[in-house]
Amino acid sequence: MMVALPMVNPHVEVTALIPGWVDVVAVALAAFFTGVALTERRTALVGALFAGVLVGIGGGVIRDLLLGLRPAATQNHWYVLIGALFALLGVMFAHLVPVDAWLSLLLDSCVIGLFAVIGANKALVFDSPWPVAILLGVTTGIGGGILLDVVRGDKPIIFGGDSQWAAPATLIGTSLCVGLAYVLPGPAAGWIGGVTLVVLRMCGAKWHWSDPTVHQVSLPEQRSSPAA
Amino acid sequence: MMVALPMVNPHVEVTALIPGWVDVVAVALAAFFTGVALTERRTALVGALFAGVLVGIGGGVIRDLLLGLRPAATQNHWYVLIGALFALLGVMFAHLVPVDAWLSLLLDSCVIGLFAVIGANKALVFDSPWPVAILLGVTTGIGGGILLDVVRGDKPIIFGGDSQWAAPATLIGTSLCVGLAYVLPGPAAGWIGGVTLVVLRMCGAKWHWSDPTVHQVSLPEQRSSPAA
Amino acid sequence: MMVALPMVNPHVEVTALIPGWVDVVAVALAAFFTGVALTERRTALVGALFAGVLVGIGGGVIRDLLLGLRPAATQNHWYVLIGALFALLGVMFAHLVPVDAWLSLLLDSCVIGLFAVIGANKALVFDSPWPVAILLGVTTGIGGGILLDVVRGDKPIIFGGDSQWAAPATLIGTSLCVGLAYVLPGPAAGWIGGVTLVVLRMCGAKWHWSDPTVHQVSLPEQRSSPAA
Repeated sequence: MMVALPMVNPHVEVTALIPGWVDVVAVALAAFFTGVALTERRTALVGALFAGVLVGIGGGVIRDLLLGLRPAATQNHWYVLIGALFALLGVMFAHLVPVDAWLSLLLDSCVIGLFAVIGANKALVFDSPWPVAILLGVTTGIGGGILLDVVRGDKPIIFGGDSQWAAPATLIGTSLCVGLAYVLPGPAAGWIGGVTLVVLRMCGAKWHWSDPTVHQVSLPEQRSSPAA
Repeated sequence: MMVALPMVNPHVEVTALIPGWVDVVAVALAAFFTGVALTERRTALVGALFAGVLVGIGGGVIRDLLLGLRPAATQNHWYVLIGALFALLGVMFAHLVPVDAWLSLLLDSCVIGLFAVIGANKALVFDSPWPVAILLGVTTGIGGGILLDVVRGDKPIIFGGDSQWAAPATLIGTSLCVGLAYVLPGPAAGWIGGVTLVVLRMCGAKWHWSDPTVHQVSLPEQRSSPAA
Repeated sequence: MMVALPMVNPHVEVTALIPGWVDVVAVALAAFFTGVALTERRTALVGALFAGVLVGIGGGVIRDLLLGLRPAATQNHWYVLIGALFALLGVMFAHLVPVDAWLSLLLDSCVIGLFAVIGANKALVFDSPWPVAILLGVTTGIGGGILLDVVRGDKPIIFGGDSQWAAPATLIGTSLCVGLAYVLPGPAAGWIGGVTLVVLRMCGAKWHWSDPTVHQVSLPEQRSSPAA
């Protein structure tokens, strides 16, 4: 089979790394919505701050570790401070926020899209081959949420259930972003991938698309013994 | 908003890194108590050794990775060896240990305090800004226990339940330790922060302080529809 | 107690690092069987791909991070691509694979053995002391599976239950592999350790050996108060 497993340096039209403050804005939004969501449950305050920081920086930390970098989130004081502060604000003002389900979903999708594009961009800038860039984009996008689900003992939506098409939209949008980065300038690829992600997610939620399941691609339908 | 996200080099009165053998003593204590606690349940022996190592080195490993360092726990043979050995001793001698609830709680608090101060100290020595130092101190203090809860499928105490004030005490003690490190010599800051952590935890357990919850800081009490 | 915590450089007969394509073959097998196993449950397709990649590369990623290295799995495109592809193939052809319980168990054991030997080899090549090499071998062997269990909310088999002796066999085989590496050439140590792991696992499953539990090493049987 393959022998050398060469390092594939993608000939990507790398522009620049997306600036850090965009990342911090995404962290603030993610932490805020985490705080808002937690008021529905009996959660300890320290746990809520921890959850906000975890969802805010978790995906990016995993991405940076997988790239062999010191995580951006521990190199300055903004990430942790903003994550904890906005989780607290989310908890405090949860009942004042006029909760429109569609607006919430739109903002949640935008945060996922922002994180996914930032993650894919950083992976490509640091010479990752395209499958790695897609994995790290998806991880940055929904990794923080998966981490919180895992830590809280909830089953992550990526495995099914009521994800409102978050997982497929993230995979498709991120793949588009990475693929287009080979032929388009970086910002164009990022915008197209990110907007596609948000639009697909919103359409999926609006028309109740169900996530594709393993049964739909399982080849032979002759599940011979219907026992069990 | 902020543009450059500068690396904040704290003007901390850095003394020296707390020596490694203190860390290893904390690992031994943490692993031993993990082993003692596991005999109450039907646990596989290999799992108990794994749990002891995980609780002993887990928090410190996460801290070191977040600092961009090779984990201390894999750089010499003491950490893993001591963790596994003391977990085994904990399992073996669990029924000989005269279990006084208050002594157990005191020792448990001391282990958390020791880990938290070691973690905050290391973060500051490696130029972390103060919010990062607090996060990493708390992570080193209770990260190993959270990891074990997550791996075993238990809900971590940081999110609520019967934490006996462990989470708030850890956050307050670590914050004090980090804050005082800016104005006091390192050892003084560490002792004050660590002792505060232990005292708060013991007081919290003694007088049944309940962890502050998100409902207590949630601003408007007009939870309009009391349904559900 | 000990003062310097010296870095123990093992005088191991280090030969060469096991070539990367062996690792990728193990990833393919692990991802394929993960896909096959997931068709028994209602899993989202994106989740199945994610699970295949997680089980395939998860253990090795943790090993590399603990060694302070950039994970091998993100340095070329094979790992992620092969992991996702073979998870998809596993899902698609699950019902065509003639499932013989013993053949499945044998292949599963071989994958664990392959990963464990690869992990211990890499740890020793990068100058890890023997307790660390054993830990990292075991982690590479069963870490991916533990990660999937944790993320899915299942209790990892390492803590008990129906592991079919996977955990003890992995610990014994890996320890043998690491220990023999001090006196035998690397390949011989690897083969002996790996084959021992597979044979022990198969024997354990065949004769229904139960995993040793903490109660079997717990010293005094005088559990005085049988209450609770």
